[in-house]
Amino acid sequence: MEPLDRPASLAARVANNLRKELSGEYVVGGQLPSEPELATQLGVSRGTVRQALTMLEREGMIIRRQGAGTYVHYISRVQTRVEHAYEFSDLLRIAGFEPSIQLISFENFTLAEEMAVQLDVEPGTQALVVRKLFLANSQPAIYCLDFIPQHLINQPYDEYELQQPIFDFMKQRCGQSTVQNLAEIVPQVATKELADLLKMELGQPLLRIDEIGYNEEGGPVIFTRAYYKDQFIRFSVLRKRI
Amino acid sequence: MEPLDRPASLAARVANNLRKELSGEYVVGGQLPSEPELATQLGVSRGTVRQALTMLEREGMIIRRQGAGTYVHYISRVQTRVEHAYEFSDLLRIAGFEPSIQLISFENFTLAEEMAVQLDVEPGTQALVVRKLFLANSQPAIYCLDFIPQHLINQPYDEYELQQPIFDFMKQRCGQSTVQNLAEIVPQVATKELADLLKMELGQPLLRIDEIGYNEEGGPVIFTRAYYKDQFIRFSVLRKRI
Repeated sequence: MEPLDRPASLAARVANNLRKELSGEYVVGGQLPSEPELATQLGVSRGTVRQALTMLEREGMIIRRQGAGTYVHYISRVQTRVEHAYEFSDLLRIAGFEPSIQLISFENFTLAEEMAVQLDVEPGTQALVVRKLFLANSQPAIYCLDFIPQHLINQPYDEYELQQPIFDFMKQRCGQSTVQNLAEIVPQVATKELADLLKMELGQPLLRIDEIGYNEEGGPVIFTRAYYKDQFIRFSVLRKRI
Repeated sequence: MEPLDRPASLAARVANNLRKELSGEYVVGGQLPSEPELATQLGVSRGTVRQALTMLEREGMIIRRQGAGTYVHYISRVQTRVEHAYEFSDLLRIAGFEPSIQLISFENFTLAEEMAVQLDVEPGTQALVVRKLFLANSQPAIYCLDFIPQHLINQPYDEYELQQPIFDFMKQRCGQSTVQNLAEIVPQVATKELADLLKMELGQPLLRIDEIGYNEEGGPVIFTRAYYKDQFIRFSVLRKRI
């Protein structure tokens, strides 16, 4: 009954293998072996290889240039279920990327009404805002801002810890375990700031997810705004009829 | 433990009431009563009204013009959980809109490899494609394309039926009940065609959801691509840590 597991055609399976291989071993712009070479490597017919490449081409993952070969347009996209809140680094690692984190800034921030309401604190409450960039094979993939009310942070911390998963920071420095997040999904276009940070063109589409993390008692303890580059991460969801 | 139900501040509750009222009784561009009038109507202080209006202004729902009053910028957005597959008309009705459906076209379509794989049919299979526009209080909110393999349609139908919920059509004309959908969430910008259909500006962000509907046996029976105007519909999701 799990639709994700139903059998795919041979070409679809070859495409899937190629997707994994591309994300593990290739860089954007890298050249793929020729069709006959791929057929030999994968032990399938040249026709099947051609079908699989056509699928990857339609997805925009590769580019085929007449007489000049096949090139990687982007490395495999992470396909993940939106209902599952993974650490960003884990998310990238699972998809075969080498993840890294760049701490952009951390500073004090005064919460305005709207965000204060979401975190169930008074407007004007001080919060720590941590800005981080998550890279996949050294390419920017996710830009994320975490807002944590300062009064929850009851232990000293150093800069290094802010480059670790925020879940660990919440647990160790705030004594808070976030067990579930209520998230809002917002389509957006890249502003100048986002385009610079995520190395993309102005006006390109992005997925923004705003989420409030709740502790075991159901209290809101962190607000996270993350921008996902569609080239790297695509969310799926299982929807049931109501 | 349900974070959605935690108590909100008085201003947040007033904002919520206003949101409902605006979506039920106002049109875009309509003028709201003055702050003192609203305070009297709602039985709260003028300060609370001002706070609530500030919240709605930040959301982009209203515009306040100095000395000229407060105007509706957009009618209340539908807030719905992405895990729940509602009929679009129900979705709009629940949010207080008057829904209507405009049938754009229906025609035969030859499935290419990628969509054929998703529907588990051979490339080249013929499908019925139905294009519909869902309006909220006469304003375009969702543009949707349904692809149904022709061989599943085993009863004659007329044009009128294609303007009804596609779930009913699948049941009555195909003998198929779709019990769950596997959906992919894609941020996108409005192309010329989409901007014209949805009456929005070129390059504005849109949320696209591509989904495959599965019947009770877990077989894929319909592919739906829907474009949601963020101004009208915003999806939320409850995410659990993995």
